[in-house]
Amino acid sequence: MPRDIVVLGSTGSIGRQTLQVVEEFREHFRVRALAAGKNWRLLLEQVVRFEPEAAGLLHEEDAARLRAGLPPGLNTTVFSGTEGLVRLATLPGADTVVAAISGASGLVPAVAAIEAGKNIALANKETLVVAGEIVTRLAREQGVRLLPVDSEHSAVWQCLDDRPGVAKIILTASGGPFREYSREALARVTPETALRHPTWHMGPKITIDSATLMNKGLEVIEAHWLFGIGYDNINVLVHPQSIVHGMVEFADGSIAAALSITDMRLPILYALSYPERLANSLPKLDLAAVGRLTFEEPDRERFPCLGLAIAAGRAGGSMPAAMNAANEVAVAAFLEGRIHFNGIPAVVEKIMAGHSMISNPSLAEVLSADALARAEAREVVRELERC
Amino acid sequence: MPRDIVVLGSTGSIGRQTLQVVEEFREHFRVRALAAGKNWRLLLEQVVRFEPEAAGLLHEEDAARLRAGLPPGLNTTVFSGTEGLVRLATLPGADTVVAAISGASGLVPAVAAIEAGKNIALANKETLVVAGEIVTRLAREQGVRLLPVDSEHSAVWQCLDDRPGVAKIILTASGGPFREYSREALARVTPETALRHPTWHMGPKITIDSATLMNKGLEVIEAHWLFGIGYDNINVLVHPQSIVHGMVEFADGSIAAALSITDMRLPILYALSYPERLANSLPKLDLAAVGRLTFEEPDRERFPCLGLAIAAGRAGGSMPAAMNAANEVAVAAFLEGRIHFNGIPAVVEKIMAGHSMISNPSLAEVLSADALARAEAREVVRELERC
Repeated sequence: MPRDIVVLGSTGSIGRQTLQVVEEFREHFRVRALAAGKNWRLLLEQVVRFEPEAAGLLHEEDAARLRAGLPPGLNTTVFSGTEGLVRLATLPGADTVVAAISGASGLVPAVAAIEAGKNIALANKETLVVAGEIVTRLAREQGVRLLPVDSEHSAVWQCLDDRPGVAKIILTASGGPFREYSREALARVTPETALRHPTWHMGPKITIDSATLMNKGLEVIEAHWLFGIGYDNINVLVHPQSIVHGMVEFADGSIAAALSITDMRLPILYALSYPERLANSLPKLDLAAVGRLTFEEPDRERFPCLGLAIAAGRAGGSMPAAMNAANEVAVAAFLEGRIHFNGIPAVVEKIMAGHSMISNPSLAEVLSADALARAEAREVVRELERC
Repeated sequence: MPRDIVVLGSTGSIGRQTLQVVEEFREHFRVRALAAGKNWRLLLEQVVRFEPEAAGLLHEEDAARLRAGLPPGLNTTVFSGTEGLVRLATLPGADTVVAAISGASGLVPAVAAIEAGKNIALANKETLVVAGEIVTRLAREQGVRLLPVDSEHSAVWQCLDDRPGVAKIILTASGGPFREYSREALARVTPETALRHPTWHMGPKITIDSATLMNKGLEVIEAHWLFGIGYDNINVLVHPQSIVHGMVEFADGSIAAALSITDMRLPILYALSYPERLANSLPKLDLAAVGRLTFEEPDRERFPCLGLAIAAGRAGGSMPAAMNAANEVAVAAFLEGRIHFNGIPAVVEKIMAGHSMISNPSLAEVLSADALARAEAREVVRELERC
C-alpha cells in the first residue's frame, strides 16, 4: 500500500525534490494534494504529472489560471488562500503532510495538519522556531510524528532512534563561506559573494543564514523541540565538508554519527519511508574519495547570530518569534544592499533587547510578536542606513 | 541487581581492563570467578580485591601457589587445567562470561559457557575465526548473546542495533605503523620498529597483526559470523586516527558511524552494561580537538594478509583455522627474527594453498586442522630461514 502524501510548497526547492523522490518510488508514495505560493505554471506541470485530487495556490487569480490550464479528464479540485491550504493539509485519507512552505504562512496549515492527525514531514523552520511549544504539545496530544526533513535533524533523529542513555546531541555546520574571515573582512562582504555557498545549493535567505550561522541557531531551537533536549546538551560543531550531518553522544561517551552525501533527497526520502530504508539511484558516499573530515568549534564572536538564536531559544515564549522575524528583515535588508553583513546580528540583537516577552504564548500571540518585531526591525534597518 | 560475571583471562590486557571497569561499577557488576594462564601472583591480587567464589589457573602447581597465598577467611575455590576453566565458564548463577583467553585454549571454555547458556563478552578472536560456524549456531540454539568486546565490532554492533535496511558494514583499520612503507621498506622492518604501534597499546602478537593488516582480516571473519553478513558486504577502510571504529551503510546510502576515544574500557563496559549506557570517568571525545579524520582504501598489494584472511573466510570450513594457525607461527618467527616482515604473508599463503579443507568441521576437526597447520607452518619457516 503506498503512503498518501500532501506536499505543501511543492514548487520550492524542498517541494521539487520531494516530487523527485516520489517519482522514483511511485509504488511507495502517492501524491494526494499539492500546494504552491504563486508559481501556478510549475504547479500545473506537477498536477499533470502526479494527478492529485486537490491543489492549492495562495491567490484566487492564480488558482483560476491553474483551473483553466487543467487538461480535460483531470479531476483535480483547486483551492486558494489560507483556507485552501488548510483544506489540503487536512485532506481525509492523507497520511503524511510535507510542510515545505517557508515563513509564517507555512505555520497555520502545519498546525491544521497536526490537528487533523497527519504525520508531518517538517521542512518549514518557523513551525518549531516560532511555535515549538505549541506544535510539539499538539503533536503529542494527537499522537502524530514530526519527521525531520532537514539533513541535520534527520541525522540526529537517525542517531537517536529511541535509544537509551542519550547525553547530548551535536549539530554540524558547514561554517559558511566566511568561516575564516576576520570581523573587518565580514563587514565588507557583499550579497553577491555571500550567495556563493560552498556545499549546499539553497535559496538566498537560507544561504545568508548559513553564512551568519543564524541557520544553525534556528536549528538548535528546532532540535530542542523535536528531540526534547535542553539547550545545555545541544552542541554545534563546524564541519566544512558537510558529510557528518549530526551526532549523538551517549552517557558512556560513545558518539553515534550519521553521514551521507550532501543531497536533500536523502532526508526527504527517509522522512517519507520511515522506518523503512529504500535503495535509490543517488550516488553513495565514498569516504576514501572524500579522504578528510575536519571539525572545529564555531566562533561565536565573529558570528554572533548563533549565540543570539540560542539565547532566544533559552528565553522561550515569544522571544524566538521576535528573533526570527528580526533576522528575516535584516537578511532582506542585507540582500538589498541596505545594511552590511555585521548589521544582521546588530538588528537581531536590538529587537531581542527591546522585546516584551510573552510566556506560553498562543499561536495568535506568536504571530503578533512576529509582526511587531518585523515592523520594529524595519525601523532599526532605517536607522542603520542613516548612520 | 548486579550482573554476575566470570572473567576468563583476567591477568591479560583485556582482563585487567575488564576489572578496572568492574572496579568503577561495583554496584552493577559482581565478579563470580576469575581465571588466568600462569600469572598466579596477579591473579592472587585480583582474588583478594574481588573475592570471587572460584578461580582457575592453567597448571596445578600455580593453582597450589594461589591456594597457599589466599588470606584466611577468603572462600575462593581454586581450579586448574582446561577442566577447571570449563568449571568456571559454566559456573551456576553467572550471567556473562568475558572470554579473554587468547589462542586456541580460549575456545573450549567459550564453547562450554555457551552450552551452559551464558552470554559471552567475546574478546578471544579464535572463537569466531576458527570456529565461527559452530559457535554462532550454538549461541543461536542456546539463545545466548555474543557481545563483542573488540572496539571495531562493538562499534558496528552499536550502529546496527537491530535496525532494518542494512546494506553493508565497514570496519576501520589504523593501517598500522607501516601504512606508507613501500614493499622494499617493509622487507627491512624489524620486530623493534613493528612493536611501536601508534594508537592502541597492545600485546606483541596483535601489534604485528595490526601492522600486516592480518588483524583486520581476522576481524572481517569475526564480523561475518557475529553479524551474519556476507563477505561482499564487509568493507575495510584505513583510518589512522582510530576515532571512527566502525560503520554501517544502510540501503538508502546513509551511513551510521560509532566514534569514541581509543580506550578498550569503553567497548568492555558496553558489552557488560548492554543495553544500558553508563556514565564513566573516561575522558570524552573532543572532535574539535582531534580536528581531522582521514580515510583511505587499504593497499592489498603491500599488505596481502588482509586479502588472505578474507579468502580463508570465504573458503570457510577448516580454512580459517589453518590460516590463523599459520599466521601465529609466522608472527612468532618474525618476532624471533627468523623471517622478515614480508615472510609472514608468504607462510600464510603457502599453508592455505596446501590445506586439505574440511567443510562443516566439528570442533575436534578445527582443532586438529589448527595443530596440523602449525606443524606445517613451522616447516615453512625453517625453509624460509634456509633461503
